[in-house]
Amino acid sequence: MAFVERVEVAGHIIDSLILAKVLDVILDAGADYRIVDVEIGRTSLDPSRAVLEVAAEDDDVLARLLDDLQVHGANRVAHSDARLAVADRDGVLPEGFYSTTNLPTEVRLSGRWVEVENPEMDCGLVVLPDGRVRTEPMHRVRAGDHVVVGNDGVRVRPLSKPRGATPFEFMTSEVSSEKPKDALVAEVAGRMRQAKARGAKVLAVCGPAVVHTGAAPHLARLVRHGWVDVLFAGNGFAAHDIESNVLGTSLGVRLASGDARAEGGHSNHLRVVNEVRRRGSIAAAVADGWLTGGVMFECVTHGVPFVLGGSVRDDGPLPDVHTDVVEAADAMRALLPAVGVALMLASTLHAIATGNLLPAGVEAYCVDINQAVVTKLADRGSHQALGIVTDVGLFLHTLADHLAPE
Amino acid sequence: MAFVERVEVAGHIIDSLILAKVLDVILDAGADYRIVDVEIGRTSLDPSRAVLEVAAEDDDVLARLLDDLQVHGANRVAHSDARLAVADRDGVLPEGFYSTTNLPTEVRLSGRWVEVENPEMDCGLVVLPDGRVRTEPMHRVRAGDHVVVGNDGVRVRPLSKPRGATPFEFMTSEVSSEKPKDALVAEVAGRMRQAKARGAKVLAVCGPAVVHTGAAPHLARLVRHGWVDVLFAGNGFAAHDIESNVLGTSLGVRLASGDARAEGGHSNHLRVVNEVRRRGSIAAAVADGWLTGGVMFECVTHGVPFVLGGSVRDDGPLPDVHTDVVEAADAMRALLPAVGVALMLASTLHAIATGNLLPAGVEAYCVDINQAVVTKLADRGSHQALGIVTDVGLFLHTLADHLAPE
Amino acid sequence: MAFVERVEVAGHIIDSLILAKVLDVILDAGADYRIVDVEIGRTSLDPSRAVLEVAAEDDDVLARLLDDLQVHGANRVAHSDARLAVADRDGVLPEGFYSTTNLPTEVRLSGRWVEVENPEMDCGLVVLPDGRVRTEPMHRVRAGDHVVVGNDGVRVRPLSKPRGATPFEFMTSEVSSEKPKDALVAEVAGRMRQAKARGAKVLAVCGPAVVHTGAAPHLARLVRHGWVDVLFAGNGFAAHDIESNVLGTSLGVRLASGDARAEGGHSNHLRVVNEVRRRGSIAAAVADGWLTGGVMFECVTHGVPFVLGGSVRDDGPLPDVHTDVVEAADAMRALLPAVGVALMLASTLHAIATGNLLPAGVEAYCVDINQAVVTKLADRGSHQALGIVTDVGLFLHTLADHLAPE
Amino acid sequence: MAFVERVEVAGHIIDSLILAKVLDVILDAGADYRIVDVEIGRTSLDPSRAVLEVAAEDDDVLARLLDDLQVHGANRVAHSDARLAVADRDGVLPEGFYSTTNLPTEVRLSGRWVEVENPEMDCGLVVLPDGRVRTEPMHRVRAGDHVVVGNDGVRVRPLSKPRGATPFEFMTSEVSSEKPKDALVAEVAGRMRQAKARGAKVLAVCGPAVVHTGAAPHLARLVRHGWVDVLFAGNGFAAHDIESNVLGTSLGVRLASGDARAEGGHSNHLRVVNEVRRRGSIAAAVADGWLTGGVMFECVTHGVPFVLGGSVRDDGPLPDVHTDVVEAADAMRALLPAVGVALMLASTLHAIATGNLLPAGVEAYCVDINQAVVTKLADRGSHQALGIVTDVGLFLHTLADHLAPE
Repeated sequence: MAFVERVEVAGHIIDSLILAKVLDVILDAGADYRIVDVEIGRTSLDPSRAVLEVAAEDDDVLARLLDDLQVHGANRVAHSDARLAVADRDGVLPEGFYSTTNLPTEVRLSGRWVEVENPEMDCGLVVLPDGRVRTEPMHRVRAGDHVVVGNDGVRVRPLSKPRGATPFEFMTSEVSSEKPKDALVAEVAGRMRQAKARGAKVLAVCGPAVVHTGAAPHLARLVRHGWVDVLFAGNGFAAHDIESNVLGTSLGVRLASGDARAEGGHSNHLRVVNEVRRRGSIAAAVADGWLTGGVMFECVTHGVPFVLGGSVRDDGPLPDVHTDVVEAADAMRALLPAVGVALMLASTLHAIATGNLLPAGVEAYCVDINQAVVTKLADRGSHQALGIVTDVGLFLHTLADHLAPE
Repeated sequence: MAFVERVEVAGHIIDSLILAKVLDVILDAGADYRIVDVEIGRTSLDPSRAVLEVAAEDDDVLARLLDDLQVHGANRVAHSDARLAVADRDGVLPEGFYSTTNLPTEVRLSGRWVEVENPEMDCGLVVLPDGRVRTEPMHRVRAGDHVVVGNDGVRVRPLSKPRGATPFEFMTSEVSSEKPKDALVAEVAGRMRQAKARGAKVLAVCGPAVVHTGAAPHLARLVRHGWVDVLFAGNGFAAHDIESNVLGTSLGVRLASGDARAEGGHSNHLRVVNEVRRRGSIAAAVADGWLTGGVMFECVTHGVPFVLGGSVRDDGPLPDVHTDVVEAADAMRALLPAVGVALMLASTLHAIATGNLLPAGVEAYCVDINQAVVTKLADRGSHQALGIVTDVGLFLHTLADHLAPE
Repeated sequence: MAFVERVEVAGHIIDSLILAKVLDVILDAGADYRIVDVEIGRTSLDPSRAVLEVAAEDDDVLARLLDDLQVHGANRVAHSDARLAVADRDGVLPEGFYSTTNLPTEVRLSGRWVEVENPEMDCGLVVLPDGRVRTEPMHRVRAGDHVVVGNDGVRVRPLSKPRGATPFEFMTSEVSSEKPKDALVAEVAGRMRQAKARGAKVLAVCGPAVVHTGAAPHLARLVRHGWVDVLFAGNGFAAHDIESNVLGTSLGVRLASGDARAEGGHSNHLRVVNEVRRRGSIAAAVADGWLTGGVMFECVTHGVPFVLGGSVRDDGPLPDVHTDVVEAADAMRALLPAVGVALMLASTLHAIATGNLLPAGVEAYCVDINQAVVTKLADRGSHQALGIVTDVGLFLHTLADHLAPE
Repeated sequence: MAFVERVEVAGHIIDSLILAKVLDVILDAGADYRIVDVEIGRTSLDPSRAVLEVAAEDDDVLARLLDDLQVHGANRVAHSDARLAVADRDGVLPEGFYSTTNLPTEVRLSGRWVEVENPEMDCGLVVLPDGRVRTEPMHRVRAGDHVVVGNDGVRVRPLSKPRGATPFEFMTSEVSSEKPKDALVAEVAGRMRQAKARGAKVLAVCGPAVVHTGAAPHLARLVRHGWVDVLFAGNGFAAHDIESNVLGTSLGVRLASGDARAEGGHSNHLRVVNEVRRRGSIAAAVADGWLTGGVMFECVTHGVPFVLGGSVRDDGPLPDVHTDVVEAADAMRALLPAVGVALMLASTLHAIATGNLLPAGVEAYCVDINQAVVTKLADRGSHQALGIVTDVGLFLHTLADHLAPE
């Protein structure tokens, strides 16, 4: 193996499985390693540190492998400055661009390490004229931007998970429906309390099943009591939330009575969307007294900002929906700073979209009744996501009883 | 089509889909029909009635088709007496035996219709010396028994579902996780109240996930307050219920604290099983003060009879487990009379076993988080089963709060 | 019940369950019925016909109920002309607009029934100056358009399903994973052959799992041999299809070798998207020889039109993606005429979007490994959809072996 | 923390995640550790070794923790002889019995380490008069047996997974439906070839869905060509396999033709079971020419031993079914020696039962369409199980084409 590079990984690399994962990635790539130096923390609080010599048969494989190792927090030892290339077309990164992780990242410029401002995965790094470094999604790059290429001079910090001290303590559980649910709900409530106490925001990402399962009034209660600071959803969630408040149904099923069977009004959500379009916005529909309750109402009333992202299956859609999905994602990005906890509630599309945008340090709880969905969400590079396989209807009822009893 | 037979179907055959299903079955078998006579009830309370001429190309197909039609309540018009054959070996039915449905059934003997005593599907009909007719599973047939063969002289009554008047009113919902859950739980609580009020019994069929999800204390509460009259489960449910009460864990996960993460004691359930074996029975373990709480404890204390059916995956098993599965099913049969509502709680194996034994008139609610399991249960000929796709942990918590607040 | 209206339903209303469903909907709405006239077809080929008097307690309930009955093919008997109202704002329908089904529909104008041109559900009906009637989605309505309001003078035809004669013969199976799969695949292949023979088009709607499961080369084979006429997908499917052909991986997993384990290149799909952006379009990337195989390549090479609909989770996205979702849906609409068979392949978002747009007469096969997804698709008013719970990877392999052996 | 013990763990403890898991278990138990000595293998082929000092606040917690650590291959350093206690009742282990893992295990007797003969989890260890040590399930213990208590003098060897050299190489994939399926099937075929080449046996554990999905002829082909050496199943699988061969249906669905829709003969499986009961056994039904094809026929004809384990849901059952589940499990145990590969095919009950009995060194492939089932199987302490989320019907077709083309 002719091509060799030294990488270093430090932190709680043994009990957080980081070193094991790093060795795994090396061998899976058909490369090999030699451990050059290793210091194992004597106690559970001491960090560890390992230096590896990674060897591969060709330079390309080695380069791609170094990329992948950085996703797990392993950085090259050799510290040269980052290499920059100038973008020559709007919306296109230079070839060989450094592709970001969602971990805290630093870039070495003129011998000095500069912290990257807004970690987000699958983006490029743009060095601004004033020396700051920003993470930019591909579509925002402009011709003339200075973009980091290769992984020289870029280093990341793995999320450290010392025990007993951090938010991640109880998040080691794997995805399964067979967990004590009351206890899990209590834990999530506790995490939300801690987040609010330290000034962090809570983000709720909502799918339409929140309404269909009768959970919307409980979510509205959480919004009313200040437990939700930002809300992401799609046209379906908002339309059914409004339908259920204006007409008392969701997808034509009457929610309020015990009459789970009743159907009626297959076009209810359409009429509701049409009325909001007539008024111009959800806020206008609240202002003129047409909409008087529900999650969207509480968001408007309590000044909770929301983004409704469009999708090709939308009816209408509501006037508040961002029909351009690139704009929708940008609107979501603008609301993420200071978010500390994200609740993904029976949402696949918007939850994955949000997961793509979140820095690794945000705690995320993915609640869905379908184990396959929860696994998918938890798998998409969101190391920090805890999957909870349960019924979102009963989950939100119990959570609201913990945090916002009325 | 040379072979023709007339069949009749009566009751709420239009709005209960019975006639449609009957025509479907005929065409699917490659046979054809002509409607000879039809009276459609004018109003939603009037029953309807149809007489069909069914034609098939060969006698065999016609015979099998007539069998299948009876599952849906369509009987031959020609009323001869039932034909009987004598069983020549223990545990073997005569060739051509009438295979039962779980609908109310009558047999024509010497020109008189005799009601069959205990409807159960997939069994034979044995005519006793005193003229009574019993449903007997294959293994209970004895050489010399008189068994009904063919379907001459056998008629069934379809379950009628007039609206607004019967227990089945709200059971038309299809299986889906997207239903308003609080309303569904309230409905089930109401059905249980009505069943108890008319003197019917409530049966609970329990899988181990009832314990793992932390729902066992809520089920114990229902038992303690008299809401469960019979309990079916396996070794796993009982062992984990006892483990959680004696050691505070289930599969090594601590349930009581909010500490969903804690593991410990992978062999806890084994030690618990071993201790009950030493004492001889669960009742003995209660009697000597070793077991002081939980579902099994409440069953023993309140005289609620239970059957623990064995399975090949059992550890131990507990001394109360029927390790012979044929005996286990017979023990379950003995406890079914007077059961009016069956709750199937996160159990696949025992729920299917119970579904096989239940008469069609018993209301059954299948609660599981996995839609595929619920569909499977609801499909197995149990027309009367309502599938509820939800989290059994939160479901039982909410149900117990309705019925047995403490 | 003071408010009464007569409705009529005709066709194969007994064995297609239509009459039963109509009665069900009436009773579920809290209304009642009296059967005024009924003619049941004597044989399985004769259509039936029923006239019902529907009674409700208030006019509103009755109006909404008549709406809902029309979804099932029951029309008012009283034939007045349709009422029209003029839209006063772009993108907003007049209050009380008639909300469409996806069934064949006629509108009565000046005493003459006019066939609606393009059935699609959840839209409005616009009467053009020349007397034609078009289905228009809400966002396309312009101030001044004449829109049908109420359901006077609108009638629909239920999809008739006589046995042995139509494409829908084998589509009565319910959703389940426990079906003989080789036989199902053969049936779908046969339906596609028949569609092509009568000049109808085949539409494929594809999710990224088509690539991840290794099925893309089999789908590419079907495109190459002319079995796919239109393709709908999202950025993920196209990006991973291109990634797998240019780099040999999908989500970093190497597909070609037997080495299912290998990971590498988490950023591969990003680099591929970036390169296509540099070239300007997928067609340009084919033209300059950079992309030389795969599903998208075959579409470009064989002139198969495709729509890539954007979503908020997209990376990049590819330059061919319609980032505005309303435009994306319009682009899909433009390609639907003449489609006779739709294959929905491991796609949730785009399959639901397509299902919303398809006329009821198009056969649709929803293939997914997750039963909950298949149920969801089959439930959304797409009466004509057959759910097939299976592995899309092995399904497409077997289907391509039937239709396009190489 | 007053109570301290030293444990040692050796082998590929870094890249096989063993050390990380051991530290995790210690901290989860509320205990703490200090690393006393650690040698990390320099290359990917060198084993590593760590000695830890484990500290807990009370002796009980420490004892239970040492138990749990042994499941992961961590043994106490202090080497005293094993302590023995005499069982005082049949079927009951002495209090404090050592509860086994399924890893290779040794017991120290009179200063000498004795290899335990038949690793199986959740059992006791019985020292025979001749000094051999056997794993015995609870029910087989007899009064007077010498049983190991506590974990002094017991050590286990973690399964080592050096790369590139062992059967486990490709088994690191996690459960997901989104894997390239052709490649996975090819891998399983390759593993079966290697197992047979080294003289190991292949075990097939089968659920009824193997028949319902039309896969039984492909499995029969594998049996006929010698690729299956042992078969475990239940009454349902065998009854439906025989039904499909004698009557051409499974659960009344016709399998052979392309007619996936046809139903008929709901009692077919009962009649088939009855006929086999009349003949006395499946072998007798083959001998007298009544049964002429299918999986059970091939097993009888080619001398492949099988165990049909009873369950409470069984109809009949077939005379070959072990109705006593404890006997059934013992019959399964008797056939396990020399098994090197286990295929679990769409079976939950029998697959879990088999997983409980298998030594850790046997490769197991769990094939099911339901991700939750696969996760459950893979979770039950069977570190060596690979979950494959796919359609068993198409899986077996493809596998048989690899191994047994005809």
